[in-house]
Amino acid sequence: MSQQGLTLDYSRILSNSVGTTHGLTSAELDGAGRRVMETVATIERERKDGRHRYRDLPDDAAMLRGIRTAIKPRANAFENLVVLGIGGSALGNIALQTALNPPYYNSLPTTRRGGPRLFVVDNVDPVQVASLLEVLGPRLRKTLFNVITKSGETAETAAQFLIVRKLLRDKLGDRALRRNLLVTTDAHSGTMREIVDAEGWETLAVPEGVGGRFSVLSAVGLFSAGMCGINIGKLLSGAREMGKRCAQRTLKRNPAAMLALLLHAYYVRGKRLHVMMPYSHQLKDLADWYRQLWAESLGKCTARDGTPVVVGPTPIKALGATDQHSQVQLYREGPNDKVFIFLEVERFKKDVRIPRVAGTPASLKYLQGTSLARLLTAEKRATEFALVRSGRPCLTIRFPQINEEHVGAFIMLWEAATTIAGYLLEIDPYDQPAVQMGKDYTYALMGKDGFAAQRREIDTFASRGRKSSV
Amino acid sequence: MSQQGLTLDYSRILSNSVGTTHGLTSAELDGAGRRVMETVATIERERKDGRHRYRDLPDDAAMLRGIRTAIKPRANAFENLVVLGIGGSALGNIALQTALNPPYYNSLPTTRRGGPRLFVVDNVDPVQVASLLEVLGPRLRKTLFNVITKSGETAETAAQFLIVRKLLRDKLGDRALRRNLLVTTDAHSGTMREIVDAEGWETLAVPEGVGGRFSVLSAVGLFSAGMCGINIGKLLSGAREMGKRCAQRTLKRNPAAMLALLLHAYYVRGKRLHVMMPYSHQLKDLADWYRQLWAESLGKCTARDGTPVVVGPTPIKALGATDQHSQVQLYREGPNDKVFIFLEVERFKKDVRIPRVAGTPASLKYLQGTSLARLLTAEKRATEFALVRSGRPCLTIRFPQINEEHVGAFIMLWEAATTIAGYLLEIDPYDQPAVQMGKDYTYALMGKDGFAAQRREIDTFASRGRKSSV
Repeated sequence: MSQQGLTLDYSRILSNSVGTTHGLTSAELDGAGRRVMETVATIERERKDGRHRYRDLPDDAAMLRGIRTAIKPRANAFENLVVLGIGGSALGNIALQTALNPPYYNSLPTTRRGGPRLFVVDNVDPVQVASLLEVLGPRLRKTLFNVITKSGETAETAAQFLIVRKLLRDKLGDRALRRNLLVTTDAHSGTMREIVDAEGWETLAVPEGVGGRFSVLSAVGLFSAGMCGINIGKLLSGAREMGKRCAQRTLKRNPAAMLALLLHAYYVRGKRLHVMMPYSHQLKDLADWYRQLWAESLGKCTARDGTPVVVGPTPIKALGATDQHSQVQLYREGPNDKVFIFLEVERFKKDVRIPRVAGTPASLKYLQGTSLARLLTAEKRATEFALVRSGRPCLTIRFPQINEEHVGAFIMLWEAATTIAGYLLEIDPYDQPAVQMGKDYTYALMGKDGFAAQRREIDTFASRGRKSSV
Repeated sequence: MSQQGLTLDYSRILSNSVGTTHGLTSAELDGAGRRVMETVATIERERKDGRHRYRDLPDDAAMLRGIRTAIKPRANAFENLVVLGIGGSALGNIALQTALNPPYYNSLPTTRRGGPRLFVVDNVDPVQVASLLEVLGPRLRKTLFNVITKSGETAETAAQFLIVRKLLRDKLGDRALRRNLLVTTDAHSGTMREIVDAEGWETLAVPEGVGGRFSVLSAVGLFSAGMCGINIGKLLSGAREMGKRCAQRTLKRNPAAMLALLLHAYYVRGKRLHVMMPYSHQLKDLADWYRQLWAESLGKCTARDGTPVVVGPTPIKALGATDQHSQVQLYREGPNDKVFIFLEVERFKKDVRIPRVAGTPASLKYLQGTSLARLLTAEKRATEFALVRSGRPCLTIRFPQINEEHVGAFIMLWEAATTIAGYLLEIDPYDQPAVQMGKDYTYALMGKDGFAAQRREIDTFASRGRKSSV
């Protein structure tokens, strides 16, 4: 692959690094490679029948135009942008912001920001929501709310929407709904579609055939990113390039196939905890985004042919160097049940020199005249080396630098790898049947019509179980 | 226990809730209880010999006076407080701030905050540090840096310290070091002690005999908390009350013993992933604090008698309701290898009503007239119920409300449970031998004197391993 792109380095999972007990041999890779490349071929064939639609998002010029059209009149009109969404309607937004805008962005003066302050409210915590509304209160007129919900039925987002709609109407009048609210929802149907059609509001579309956790490269993630000055065209072009690599029919040219192969191989061998550990503050929320993608796509109890199975790696997010002082003790000495996926940055956008000062104790002299970037990179290498010495397999995804192209590529890489891994595990990576049961019980407890049976079930159970507490 | 205190509800791990395959019977509890209560007795005996010193922090009146004395002249003198520390010198500070100050605290106007803005920089990411220094630049004179390091040798904190010391001296002159810098370090020895003694600076003490991850209730965590308006006396009194409960010789009166017993019992049965899932934005960083405490204390490969073992539950932090849309699919349908520890709040400090509005679609009517607190509590109950129905054991730690007493109690509960769990696993909960190897390799890569052998080891290894990447 080109030296300019994202690379997946798998040197440190091979048996000549990690040892034969925990490492993979070249022969094992080649053996598994055949099946994986058949899977890639199947997926590419299915794409022609309209499946795996997230792969087509980078080529959707009309979508990009629509998002830009929505951004243009709003970009300089607001001081605050509040995203109301949860899960796939929030994690990508947060990840793009952290990766591509400066840390402490919201604390910067207006002139040094690419757009409004951004708040993503992906919960219904009453203290959090009340506090945010207090912070925004004096500048409500200058605040845009972007409500993101495909169906409009998600309880958390629906509740937030009802609250914000009333607030805007009460404080700023009916016309504020058109100005200070922008809804991203299904283009044709659903509860939220009914509302926006009745009101005649302008909207952005959640793309058809793309599940929430695969939707960051649509209006779902791109509107807030573009509003905050992120180059969304470059995000898409980075994703497009990676999409091409993920269609390659040769394992050693296809990073998504290699990633899926390796993580699947270790899952089968009992290493079911897949730890993503960026050595970069900017990449930390991409690890959180990955956490949803990997868990919700692969944690399943029914195979695609309907037979019962139990599968699901547990994704874990960590952060270097911070978690060296929190998790690495466990990672090195605890059960060898993890694969480590480091994210490494070759060139940081800024660096800070560690100065030479007279009178510094001898034991700190080694730091002087170096820089934080050098230190952080050394810590990554040292931690990886210590893990490998303890027989723990380590992968590295290397960013030449953190920019829109590489972040777009990273997103597409993991989405494509998730589809392949789902197929290797023989499950449907796109559904989430288990989430519904919890939603139904929530409806029952909140007294929604049609959920009396579930309510009875909860009550019966509660009366039967013994109350035990200390 | 008193209805006013924190409770540990274990109804939903018992076999009559979760079923006999994954639940515990009363007989099993009683059986394990004997060993656990012997362990508690051992620990209480050892305390008299000066061990488990973190348990004594709440009674250390001189410590509290010293911290208050340091806070008093500084409390209103600064706009920004920056904590420079990592691991145990940061996680507790962050957790206290998130739990006990309003969300979006740093965005509030000065008059609505209890103290300065707080920034905890627990990494050496060059972009993050450079960005923070830019944000603080214009107000450097009004910024206090609290450097926290027991030895002064921790590379990350030492590097930050060298940078900040130079910055203060260059921009504000030598006298700023005394005014804008406060070091929390060992009272008697170490590299940082040498520096502060040579300079004649006032300092705060890292308590003797208390490891970093057990030190939040000392100057380490309490100075920044007190500076930001948190009542540190009440934190300690909550911890003191819980300390008494954790010394109780009856299992059903000792929540730390019960917690350690249950999590140990499940660890032995193969449920090694211990997920803490607060249903409260305010409690989310306490889950991160727990993550260090549990992982670094219990992940070990040597028993206390020196024999090789491999133990270590993997703590995982999650957040309700957010992670229902990210992790719950895996939690319910994936491998049954987890125990869930919910944190629930009975009375939130604020609530937000979900309004009734004409024209709301029928499918959202159930939300109207309720509130976010009711919705969040229903979601917790529903998620727990769905998990229990799928045979997943669930614990709940219930906060009557979130205040200093209960947060102090929560901290002491987990610290005491960690000691007990360490003893049940027959390892030393207070050491972290595996962290040193990574530090040594970092020194080697950074060219520190005395680490040439490690450097050769790395170079030899690098030359041997095949470079493999896609």
